[in-house]
Amino acid sequence: MHIKALILAGGSGTRFWPKSTQEKPKQFLKITSNELTMIQETFQRIQKLVPKENIFIVTNKNHSHHIFEQLSISKDNVIFEAMAKNTAAAIALGISKFKNDDLAIVLPSDHYIQDVDEYVKTLKVAADFALKNEAIVTLGIKPKSAETGYGYIEVKKNSLSKSDTPGVIRVKRFHEKPNLETAYSYVESGNFFWNSGMFIFKVSTMWNAFKKYMPDLYKAFEKLRKIHDLKDISNVYPSLDSISIDYGVMEKADNIFVIPSDFGWSDVGSWDAVFELSQKDENGNYSSSKRALFRDSKNCAVFADNKTVAIAHLDDIIVVVNDEKILVIKRGTTQDVKKISEEF
Amino acid sequence: MHIKALILAGGSGTRFWPKSTQEKPKQFLKITSNELTMIQETFQRIQKLVPKENIFIVTNKNHSHHIFEQLSISKDNVIFEAMAKNTAAAIALGISKFKNDDLAIVLPSDHYIQDVDEYVKTLKVAADFALKNEAIVTLGIKPKSAETGYGYIEVKKNSLSKSDTPGVIRVKRFHEKPNLETAYSYVESGNFFWNSGMFIFKVSTMWNAFKKYMPDLYKAFEKLRKIHDLKDISNVYPSLDSISIDYGVMEKADNIFVIPSDFGWSDVGSWDAVFELSQKDENGNYSSSKRALFRDSKNCAVFADNKTVAIAHLDDIIVVVNDEKILVIKRGTTQDVKKISEEF
Repeated sequence: MHIKALILAGGSGTRFWPKSTQEKPKQFLKITSNELTMIQETFQRIQKLVPKENIFIVTNKNHSHHIFEQLSISKDNVIFEAMAKNTAAAIALGISKFKNDDLAIVLPSDHYIQDVDEYVKTLKVAADFALKNEAIVTLGIKPKSAETGYGYIEVKKNSLSKSDTPGVIRVKRFHEKPNLETAYSYVESGNFFWNSGMFIFKVSTMWNAFKKYMPDLYKAFEKLRKIHDLKDISNVYPSLDSISIDYGVMEKADNIFVIPSDFGWSDVGSWDAVFELSQKDENGNYSSSKRALFRDSKNCAVFADNKTVAIAHLDDIIVVVNDEKILVIKRGTTQDVKKISEEF
Repeated sequence: MHIKALILAGGSGTRFWPKSTQEKPKQFLKITSNELTMIQETFQRIQKLVPKENIFIVTNKNHSHHIFEQLSISKDNVIFEAMAKNTAAAIALGISKFKNDDLAIVLPSDHYIQDVDEYVKTLKVAADFALKNEAIVTLGIKPKSAETGYGYIEVKKNSLSKSDTPGVIRVKRFHEKPNLETAYSYVESGNFFWNSGMFIFKVSTMWNAFKKYMPDLYKAFEKLRKIHDLKDISNVYPSLDSISIDYGVMEKADNIFVIPSDFGWSDVGSWDAVFELSQKDENGNYSSSKRALFRDSKNCAVFADNKTVAIAHLDDIIVVVNDEKILVIKRGTTQDVKKISEEF
């Protein structure tokens, strides 16, 4: 038995335009740190628990150069999808390299975690529980607000839902991103947690779940996972359904558990989210560029690397600069960035 | 007698930062046109009245390459100041090349004029009057608002102030830039005009004025102007006082006349002024870049050449981009740009 981490890095969003592009999505950008990209932070963080040789990354071939530029990782530990097929396929592909009794920790590549010690402690509890039980363990974040951008994990309130392990609760149901009204009711009830997209399970447990809930996927990988060799993946991958692990497994299985977690997590889904996480000056301004000037301006942010940016007589403005492209947007509206990026 | 134009192009402001710099001030930038720089527009415009060989430019040696890159002009027609010494010295220097019976038209290099035909017509009236009278003629703009950024020309209300030539009025007094209250009273009185900085006079008339009101300046140029050769200028120039023609002559002389003019003039003193002059779309937005997007935004302007700029969910914003520098400023506050430029 080994503990193995599987980092999912196949995403290709443009919510961070003009910094992010199809070619260089968020996980390969410095977003929450001036020194490290999101995937570098993820890779560094999980090494507190998992030795480097046991960390694997599933990604897209087009992003291969970013991976090897940014991470000191063996080629054997990088698994290329033949094409993007959502998280269920990516996880099946990744764990095909693992043995049945391995413990797998599945991690998004582009999330922010403030308290790494608490994070590692939580993962240890999850790993321990998953090894001892036929369970898929998720980390659920105690909600800070009625966020409509996250999926939610619902637990039963009564004591029956508690497992034998303190802090681990049986999941009642997974919920997709709610509307605002529903989100409020979730948060108010106290039985709901944000779905962090982190999953911990014995490899055999996940194969059993795939067998039961996604039999086509299971069959497609049946041969590959026995020889732990993915060279025939291009014969298999194109025919797979593009389904998320949440929809394909989590919403259906009955052996899902959640650990309510509180280590300062954010999926950093927009420039507004980055601004929330940033260290602001006494006027509420933040700049990632050393050559920024805020004149008679409050609650503004500049993400501009080495460009010189002056903001004057304005409040609540976010400015993002990347090479020849500039975004100037009202704070609180950056969920709109993806649509804006499509105009160019 | 020849009609000669003298374009004053020695200015070095940074009111158009980050586009303008000490090294490349406004007159050498495309500000009110996407095709021509301010000085190119000035040079082209005056050729409707004055043949190219009679157009002279006084400028700073540091700007020499801009002049010859932007204008098809003979070296003999470009006069370099040894150093910046304000407009009285620049005019004395320029007209030293002219003969006493020449008619000189002094023009700023960086102003906007909408109706060129009307402008030429007005200059013709001025030239005719100045040739026939021992007069310095100025063009006074009918004020559109209580502008505090302009000097004002006051005339007497009664008919005594009228000259024999229709449209030409004797000046009572020149006034420097007023405060807002004073500016309101000027505009209300109906006896005040904006000082456009354009002056038309016989060369001998100006020398007489210099002799009377700026005797040191007169003496300094006494020898040079007789030989029409400026090679000894560097011996003369450093000792000159740095005084504007308004202060040195116009506020003192009694033979100053004004032609109330209405040809759509602006000194284009700020980004706000440029925005005022620009052709806006149905949402009141203007862009000098073809790759600009205004999303749910009104009354915004982008001055960014070939950069891509998106403005989203914002009103009344001006964005200026030059290479590695970006200004984002509230409309109506761009008089502050000079100070902002000093921070970098």
